[in-house]
Amino acid sequence: VQYSLDLEDIRGVLNRLEETIIFALIERAQFLVNATIYRRGAFAGALGPDKSLVDYLLHGTERIHAAMRRYTAPEEEPFFDDLPAPLFPAAEPVPPLLRPNAINLTPEIRSVYEREIVPRLCGPGDDGHYGSSSVCDVHCLQAIAQRVHYAKFVAESKYAAEPGAFNDVIARGDRNALTDMITAADVERTVLERVRIKARTYGMEPGVETPAARVNAELVAGIYGDWIIPLSKEVQIRYLLARAPRSDAPPASRTSK
Amino acid sequence: VQYSLDLEDIRGVLNRLEETIIFALIERAQFLVNATIYRRGAFAGALGPDKSLVDYLLHGTERIHAAMRRYTAPEEEPFFDDLPAPLFPAAEPVPPLLRPNAINLTPEIRSVYEREIVPRLCGPGDDGHYGSSSVCDVHCLQAIAQRVHYAKFVAESKYAAEPGAFNDVIARGDRNALTDMITAADVERTVLERVRIKARTYGMEPGVETPAARVNAELVAGIYGDWIIPLSKEVQIRYLLARAPRSDAPPASRTSK
Repeated sequence: VQYSLDLEDIRGVLNRLEETIIFALIERAQFLVNATIYRRGAFAGALGPDKSLVDYLLHGTERIHAAMRRYTAPEEEPFFDDLPAPLFPAAEPVPPLLRPNAINLTPEIRSVYEREIVPRLCGPGDDGHYGSSSVCDVHCLQAIAQRVHYAKFVAESKYAAEPGAFNDVIARGDRNALTDMITAADVERTVLERVRIKARTYGMEPGVETPAARVNAELVAGIYGDWIIPLSKEVQIRYLLARAPRSDAPPASRTSK
Repeated sequence: VQYSLDLEDIRGVLNRLEETIIFALIERAQFLVNATIYRRGAFAGALGPDKSLVDYLLHGTERIHAAMRRYTAPEEEPFFDDLPAPLFPAAEPVPPLLRPNAINLTPEIRSVYEREIVPRLCGPGDDGHYGSSSVCDVHCLQAIAQRVHYAKFVAESKYAAEPGAFNDVIARGDRNALTDMITAADVERTVLERVRIKARTYGMEPGVETPAARVNAELVAGIYGDWIIPLSKEVQIRYLLARAPRSDAPPASRTSK
């Protein structure tokens, strides 16, 4: 992932992160829902009454990734907050393009993933592939979280284009006006159409006359439109609402109170 | 992954595992070689003199996956041997289709991956994305190991089709004859052509007039032909050479000594 506030660069990154999510969803769709892996206490003998199998794997994975500096990247937010410190210093400093912030939507992402995405994506029932399904879940969750939190760069880029107008709306705490300002309906339509085409292309064995779809492309576009885009916009809104106004920004012109 | 000795079923699984490998390679190809992550002692302060960053991540990942029973699956072989016991019992017993065996080609897989595959797949140099590259490496290594060791089912299936002929060659320890017996040049050509088409399709943004390839399709097919297929055949050969003859198998007909 490269860091930039140029909207074209950002769209390139989002486009690529989208493919990572689609690949991960296609992998998860191999298995049934396997509701047992999300149920706390389902493996109480091994994991205690408060952890699900996915909790266990996600937590363990985040612990190792934290040691490897994953959550020092500006677009990465962990699902757990009791993670170890990085084991080694940064190779190169990350340019401080974002305002320091604590926006972390992983609780929302997990809830949506388990309650909405998996039941739509996977066949109902239980195939016993608990380990494989959980491994795929961790990939999906991490890919979605990275994409959703990368929206902070989108927000900062939009802010930088018209700081005065944003400062004004932020100062008023006007969520609705902010939502309007960051929404580009035509861009959203383009993204959804692109996701649909990608899911159809990647989810199918090429060169086969009547290929079996590994995943339903409409359904992947639906997941994107119903959950991933709205969560990304929520990150933008929260980031902007928490954003201190830029001291050198000109005041919004023609603002009357 | 389903378990079967029917060659059609097996080919379906191999086909699907192939896609997992291609997705994983496309993800790794985003980053440069980053040779530092393979060098033991490069992070000596944190990891000691004997571990590379990929060692650290792979080992940590395998420890969690072992606890979740990954290496009780008949097609899974770990890269490390000091892993914890499973945390919970099996959901359902795996049908014992294979002869018990200890064939594990992970040392060869790692060596080939680091020395041959990464330098071909990734641009030369260092982009500082050590954590992301290592995470991709673990996905690639696990996907390749699963595919390569799944070849035990291929071997057992071929054996079951003509146990007498195989028993004879196995008893003689005739590696060359065994290689001939398990080689189907036309199937290999078909697989390579399919990998090429898949890599081209998955590695390109669809619906774009002049898409930038995320990965060179020829190169992915080359990795498959030069390394993954030969390693799979090596698994078959070693599995068969170690295989005890079936007591109820008829002797090979027309065998003269």
